[in-house]
Formats: sequence, structure tokens, C-alpha cells
Amino acid sequence: MSDKKQKQKKPQKLKARLARGFPDRSTSDIRATDQMMAKIRTVYERFGFEPVETPFVEYTDALGKFLPDSDRPNEGVFSFQDDDDQWLSLRYDLTAPLARHVAENFNDIQLPYRTYRAGWVFRNEKPGPGRFRQFMQFDADIVGAPGVQSDAEMCMMMADTMEALGIPRGDYVIRVNNRKVLDGVMEAIGLGGEDNAGKRLTVLRAIDKLDKFGIEGVKLLLGAGRWDGGKEGEGDFAPGAGLDEGQVERLLGFLIIAEGNDVEETLASAESSFSDSATVLSGVSELRKISEMASTAGYGPDRIKIDPSVVRGLEYYTGPVYEAELLGGIPNEKGQIVQFGSVGGGGRYDGLVSRFMGQPVPATGFSIGVSRLMTALKNLGKLSGDVASGPILVTIMDRDRIGDYAKMAQELRTALNPLGGDGQPLGPTVPVELFQGNPKDFPKQLRYADRRGSPIAIIQGGNEKEAGKVIVKDLIEGKRIAETITDNAEWREAKAGEHLVDESDLVITVKRILAEQESDGQDV
Amino acid sequence: MSDKKQKQKKPQKLKARLARGFPDRSTSDIRATDQMMAKIRTVYERFGFEPVETPFVEYTDALGKFLPDSDRPNEGVFSFQDDDDQWLSLRYDLTAPLARHVAENFNDIQLPYRTYRAGWVFRNEKPGPGRFRQFMQFDADIVGAPGVQSDAEMCMMMADTMEALGIPRGDYVIRVNNRKVLDGVMEAIGLGGEDNAGKRLTVLRAIDKLDKFGIEGVKLLLGAGRWDGGKEGEGDFAPGAGLDEGQVERLLGFLIIAEGNDVEETLASAESSFSDSATVLSGVSELRKISEMASTAGYGPDRIKIDPSVVRGLEYYTGPVYEAELLGGIPNEKGQIVQFGSVGGGGRYDGLVSRFMGQPVPATGFSIGVSRLMTALKNLGKLSGDVASGPILVTIMDRDRIGDYAKMAQELRTALNPLGGDGQPLGPTVPVELFQGNPKDFPKQLRYADRRGSPIAIIQGGNEKEAGKVIVKDLIEGKRIAETITDNAEWREAKAGEHLVDESDLVITVKRILAEQESDGQDV
Repeated sequence: MSDKKQKQKKPQKLKARLARGFPDRSTSDIRATDQMMAKIRTVYERFGFEPVETPFVEYTDALGKFLPDSDRPNEGVFSFQDDDDQWLSLRYDLTAPLARHVAENFNDIQLPYRTYRAGWVFRNEKPGPGRFRQFMQFDADIVGAPGVQSDAEMCMMMADTMEALGIPRGDYVIRVNNRKVLDGVMEAIGLGGEDNAGKRLTVLRAIDKLDKFGIEGVKLLLGAGRWDGGKEGEGDFAPGAGLDEGQVERLLGFLIIAEGNDVEETLASAESSFSDSATVLSGVSELRKISEMASTAGYGPDRIKIDPSVVRGLEYYTGPVYEAELLGGIPNEKGQIVQFGSVGGGGRYDGLVSRFMGQPVPATGFSIGVSRLMTALKNLGKLSGDVASGPILVTIMDRDRIGDYAKMAQELRTALNPLGGDGQPLGPTVPVELFQGNPKDFPKQLRYADRRGSPIAIIQGGNEKEAGKVIVKDLIEGKRIAETITDNAEWREAKAGEHLVDESDLVITVKRILAEQESDGQDV
Repeated sequence: MSDKKQKQKKPQKLKARLARGFPDRSTSDIRATDQMMAKIRTVYERFGFEPVETPFVEYTDALGKFLPDSDRPNEGVFSFQDDDDQWLSLRYDLTAPLARHVAENFNDIQLPYRTYRAGWVFRNEKPGPGRFRQFMQFDADIVGAPGVQSDAEMCMMMADTMEALGIPRGDYVIRVNNRKVLDGVMEAIGLGGEDNAGKRLTVLRAIDKLDKFGIEGVKLLLGAGRWDGGKEGEGDFAPGAGLDEGQVERLLGFLIIAEGNDVEETLASAESSFSDSATVLSGVSELRKISEMASTAGYGPDRIKIDPSVVRGLEYYTGPVYEAELLGGIPNEKGQIVQFGSVGGGGRYDGLVSRFMGQPVPATGFSIGVSRLMTALKNLGKLSGDVASGPILVTIMDRDRIGDYAKMAQELRTALNPLGGDGQPLGPTVPVELFQGNPKDFPKQLRYADRRGSPIAIIQGGNEKEAGKVIVKDLIEGKRIAETITDNAEWREAKAGEHLVDESDLVITVKRILAEQESDGQDV
């Protein structure tokens, strides 16, 4: 590396490029995300959750065992070795680090421990369109919560979150399943035990594709495997779980039931088909409890729905799993209506903390995919990343009097952004800018104002200064007048939207014009 | 690694530990930081800055040349190789990535480009007390700003930021220097040219230690080197810049002038001592312009002060450099009064964008050390990480009626947190929790409420339910009464702070008690 550095000492021109899969974030996306997260945070806080955060980097072993792809141990995470030879990794999700945090601070933590956190996570995967290697999750968890009432409460909180974000009832659903049901079914068809762990994961992944590939596709994935193109040799080949025909039939029978709409029928059928499995029976009983509690609390099946086909990919779930799904079509960036699907989910992970401890520590929690949900809300028109107005621009006519212009800018900034007694702003921010480009070309300054969406420009040349005057140019009015003028000379005469006022009337004039613009804007 | 994984398949007990130098963030620190950042953001927005963010990971070469420690190329950053063999690094600061962003999107960006961003940065350094390997910076930059008026405006914005955070005038100062002055002085003593780049950096680092080691210490660092313990062989040895006596004397002469309080005298003296250096003269002239502009705009030397001893370590600065310093003592965590010093700084970096481009792109910006400033403000009592109150706790007496309890919790949550027409909360959040631990031990539920600082607990046993009643327990009143009671039996009689009310009066009773508690709290 040292040699390479030497050669690079005088780079002619370095290529500016984003690293693969690591995107920039635009002003509009940041503002929209912040708006959304503030609303989510309010819901979580109402339920008694408090923010706690973990760092971006953890010892690899703290993340290791429960990695979603522990059957592919060298994939998935970005890792590097510390100077003391220990392996470090960028966090893959926010759940494994939380488990480490709780275990490390177990004696100081008051259980049940309700916390939330928003944070970036990293996946060392092949990037693609819409598939990034860093993205933000917004998690809420209760640690030290043994009963399924906690899972039910999490589902209720997810439902409240969807509604707080402006998604009407009926346009989302929280779907709930129990890993015990699926585990019990797999056990019953002979896939129990440590040796079959990998096979079980392949089966779960296959079931998870039910929406995408239908029963026939899942059948192939459970058996010999599936060609992506549909026929042998077409597209990529996904190896199957290698189940025999009897196993496939029994599993498919369960899935076909689960696809039905009558939940009680599905649960009862699972109970009778797998009556010899204590795990299935326990899972079904927990699902009934969740359903009852939610209904009693006012969250009917239009909001929280038991659905035995829900999988959630992660290996570490041990009980109820749940996910929030947006229903109905949502316009995408191209205006096409698409099915958006899941925007977040989670479940019970009773083993994740206890692997650090000598005792069981039950926990449940979920994660919202922030960028994904933000995109959906933006496309639904529920979020705006735009601000009300561009900055008021103080232009520079005379380079020797920059201090004067800076003073005007500061005077406006203070007067237009009053603070309350608590030091908080009393209204939305009105930005005021001093022009900072090369001031030689004056029309360029006005073009800059135009492109920034400035409502007003402040102009003071030598003549005005001498007369103790300043020009307040209403750029919106100016633009309107300009549209009616065709002749250059006429334009110069018109001084469209310009108000020549005493220096001492600067603030009051700007306030008046802003007020006029606002009421005009409302008329439109 | 695969072998290791096999062995780890059944870990007995994994040790839960933070990776070295990567801290968790507490509830209180998160809340305090969020409060602080909201205030900073408001100031930046008033100046017309808008948020734009870059990812955590960049190609190493995009960060490479201008790394603060490019004389130690293998230190400082966390790097790892991508699957296409390209080197990736966690960002070291937010400036180099911004330069990449601007260069990559140059045709779409409207110059001058004012943006801000808060973000975590990573340093692969030896961690120590208070020295972390991840920390947050809050940056503001203007790209495409050729004149020193931009640097002056940045200093004014820093001053406004300090005051918006509640630091009174006189308790902070923005100190300004110009890298051209120092560069010119070094050139004049024969340290110009590419070959002396390393030596110049060592000299700058030595000057930067003026506050810490005094003139005598700096003299050693400029010459043969310095033993940390003060005498030969004591402590670590810091190698010096190896300047000869004449060079050292001339440089020290300048530093001694710079230590004086009369800025005009310092500037005039630099001009006469280094009158043969065009670089020094240009630097001094720029400093005068900044000082004049700031003064005219109302920012006198009590707020923005020219100080030729300011260095700022980073290699990439090309003109004015500035830093915000807290003056006076600030209590530390142990209550001792300490000098806090710099909380942020920056400067002009005209080369950082243009190394990607075929053209010059002038820029200036600064960075606030978020955790550091937050700690200072917290210790000054300017920020609080605490919330007004703990959650109202709905306890569980009867496990079969969890749905009822959940319903009560939800009813309270909705009623106590009304939303305005715009969907925004009308007041501070009142959290309401359903107890989620093991409900068997009822006193444990009340102990949980106590430790969470709950103002009220809701209790409904079978008797109450039958009678259509519910107990609203005022935990603050209860605690007050408890203090006057010594006898256990008396205690049980007293039912301290308990109000037995109709179920339909639940919300109104809770509201009344909260209002009483608030007015009592104000009396205290």
C-alpha cells in the first residue's frame, strides 16, 4: 500500500465516484425522512419507549451466530481486523447489537426494557437498483418481556405508527404468525434437530416466496429446485430443500390452508393436522391470545391479522413474528401503480440476549425499513421534502462594502426569525443569504436567486447608499410582470417588482412583501 | 473462518463487550444531542444552508490524498477491500466526502452551494479515556465561494450558533487565522517546496501545541524533539522538526508576537518582519478584510478575533482557518472546573474539490464536534437529557384480561396525547405503558413504576372489574404519604394516593391528577 501511495502522490485528476451501493442523500430525502421519523418517534414514546443507541462497529463474534446468513458465514457483513487482531464488523442490523448492549449492562437495566433506535446498517451484498449496502432501520424492542402480550403490543404499536404516518385504516395490515407453528410443522415432517438447521432455513426461504412464486413455485423450491426462467436451463437455478414427496405434500397442505382467509379455520386445521406436535399446538394457542388481546383493545383483523404463511427470514426468531404491509397500489417514481408490500417487521427472539448470559432473557421487537417506508409515503403524497421558500438573497453591488451587506443580511435574519421565551423559533425558518459567488456579474446573482427559488432580493448600489436607500426586489411579482413584457427597453424601465425604500424600512418592507406573497400564494 | 465457525456452533457463553473505542449512547445523551442539533440546524437554515449527506463508506482514494495524516498513510482510517478488489474506507471526516459529492454532481449543483450535514466519522486510532473511534460531526460548507467574505460569514454563523445554544457573549470566541500567514512564514525560513511538506506539517503540529506546552515546549518540538516527562528519558519522546537555530528563532519571534493581545500590532509586525513574502502579505490582508467585515456586521473582536497562532491540524487548508473556543471554566463530570477549549473549527480548502476537476473550485466550511460540545453544554446546564415524566403504568392483576388492560392503556395514550389538525402533537408526550414483565409478583410492578419515575399507576383487580371501577394510584402523592407512615399495617390501610373511580372516569381522573402534580411540582 505504501508503494501505491507513493505513486498516487501527484494524481492528475482523481475520479469522483460513489462507492458501489453507497448512495448520497438528497435535501428532499433528508427532510422527508426527518419528518417521518419524528412521527414514528412520537408513537414509540407514547408507548413508553426511550432511545438507546449502539455503535456502528461490534466484535464480529457478537454478531456472528445469529447472522441471517450463518449458513454463508463469509458473506453479508463488512469485516476488518483490529490492531490487536480481533475481528470487527459493521453492524448488520440493530437487534444483535441491542442484545450485546443488554447483556453487557444487565445489572443496570430495569426490565422490562423498552427502547427504540434509528440507525444505519450495512450489508456486504451485491448492490443493484434499489438495493443498497447501507440503509436505515428504525427499531423498537422490549427486552425482559416473557408473554405474548408484548408481541401483541408491538403489533398494536406498528398499527398506530402506520396511522400516525397518514396511512388510513384498510390501507395497511399487520400480519402475525408464530415461528413455533412453522417449526412444529417442520419437526412433524422429520426436519427437527440440529442437523437439519440448514434445510429448515431453505424451507423457510421457500415458504417466504409464496407471494412471489405461488404454490407451484414453492413446491419446486421445497423439492429439487427451481429454474428462474420457469423451464429447465432458463435463468438461474435455485437449489431446493430436497424434501421427499410426502414431506412436500404435508407442508403444502398446511400452506394451502394458510392461504385461506378464515383465520380460525386455518388455526383449527393446523391443530387437527398436527395434533401430535406440542410445538404447533403451543404456537396456535399463542396466536389466538394475540388475536384476542388485539381485538379486545380495539385492533380488529382489519388491522392486526393472524396469517400462518408469514415467515420473516431471520434465523433467530423463536415465537411470534409480525410484519407491516402496505395494501393496495402505490404509484412509483414513474407513476406506475405497484404493490409495495412489507415496510417492516420483527418478532420474538428469546435466544439472542441469553447466549451472552447464564439465564433466559425473553425479548421481542421490530424494525422499520426507513428508506423504503419513506419512498412509499412520498409517493403517496404523505411527506414532502420541500421547504416553503428559498432564501432571501442579499446581493453584492459594491465589493468594498461587504460588511454593510452582511449587516443587512444579519438584521433580516434576526428580525424574520424571532425566538420565543424558551429560545425556540416561533415560526418556520426564513433563510437569508449573502451572495457568496463571484459578485462581478450582477445578473448572475439574480439568476442564482431565481434558481434557489428566492422570494426577494436586496440590492444596494452606490447611488442608493448615498441616498440612504435600498431596493427590495419582489422576485415573484417581478417574474409575473416579466411575463407580460416583451421588449428589453421596456423591461429596464419597468424595474419589475422593485421597491426603493429608506434603509430603516428594510425589515418592514420585506415583511410586508412576504405577507403579500403568502396571501397571493393561498389565492392560487 | 469456516473452521472457527464450526467450533463456535455451540458457544457456551459469549462475552458481551463493546468493541474498543466504540461507545453506546444513553437515552439522556441522545435526547440532549437531539435538542442541541435542532438548535444548530435552525441557525444554519437561517443562513440558507440545506442538508445533504454522503454515505459512511467511500473509495479510499477519494479520501486518500488529503487525509490529515497522509504522512502516515496506513494509519487513521478503517479500510477493507471490496469483492472487486477496490479499497473502501469508513469516512474520516465529512469534508473529503463532500468534495467527492460536489465533483461528482458538478453539473447539477447551483454554486455557491451552501449545505450542512451531521454525521458519524471514524478514526482508526488508539482509543483512550474520552477518545473514541466513532464520533459525530456537524458540518456546514459553502462550495464555489471564492472570497474571504465567505470565511467571515462562516465565522459569524459559528458565533450565532454558540449564542443560539445559550452560551452568552463573552463566554466564547471565534478565533481566526490564515494558513497563508503560517505558510508564508515557513516559506521565508526556507521550508517551502514539495520536499518540505512533511517538515511543515511537523512545524504546524508543534505550533498547535503552544497552548499546551508554551513557547519553551514548542521550541523543543521545532528543534531536536521533546521528552513528554520534561527531562531526557522521561516519558515518550516526540521527534522534532529539526529546524536550525536561526529558523527556530525567526518562527518563535512570530509566535511571540502572535501571543500578544493587540491584533493590529501582530498583523503589522508580521507584515514588516516578512515584507519579502507575498504569501504573508496576502494572508494578512485577508485577515484584515475578515475582521473589518465582521466588525461592520456587528461581530466585534469579543466574538470574532484574529489570532495568528491558530493552526488547525489538517493539511488541506489553503486560506483562512477558524475555530470556536469556549472561554472560562466549565464544570466536568466530577464538578471540577476545567478549560474546555475548542468545540469546532474549519477553514478554506480550495484544493479539495478541484483535485477531482479540471478547474479550481474554492470552498470553505467548518465542523462542530457534536459529543464534545454536547458534554460542555450539559455540564453548563444548558441542555437536559431528561424528560418531564416517566410513563403512566397500566398494571396487570388478572392475566386473562390482558386485552382489557391493553385497551385502557390505549385509551389513555390517545386521550393524553391529542393531535392538532396538522397531525402534530399538541403538547409534550405523555407515555403510557402496559406492564410487560412477569405479572405474577404485583409489588414488582409497582417497584418497576417507581424506578421508571411513573407519576401514576392504573390498577384493576377482579373486585374492581366486577364493580365497574378502576384504581388510579397517584404515585407521587403516595410516596409523600408513605414518608409519614412507619407501620406496615397502617400502610395497607392508607392505600396511599389511591383513587377508586368509575371505569368511565379513568381518563378524566388521570388528567386531573397529572394537572395537580404539575402545579405541585411548580410550587416546589
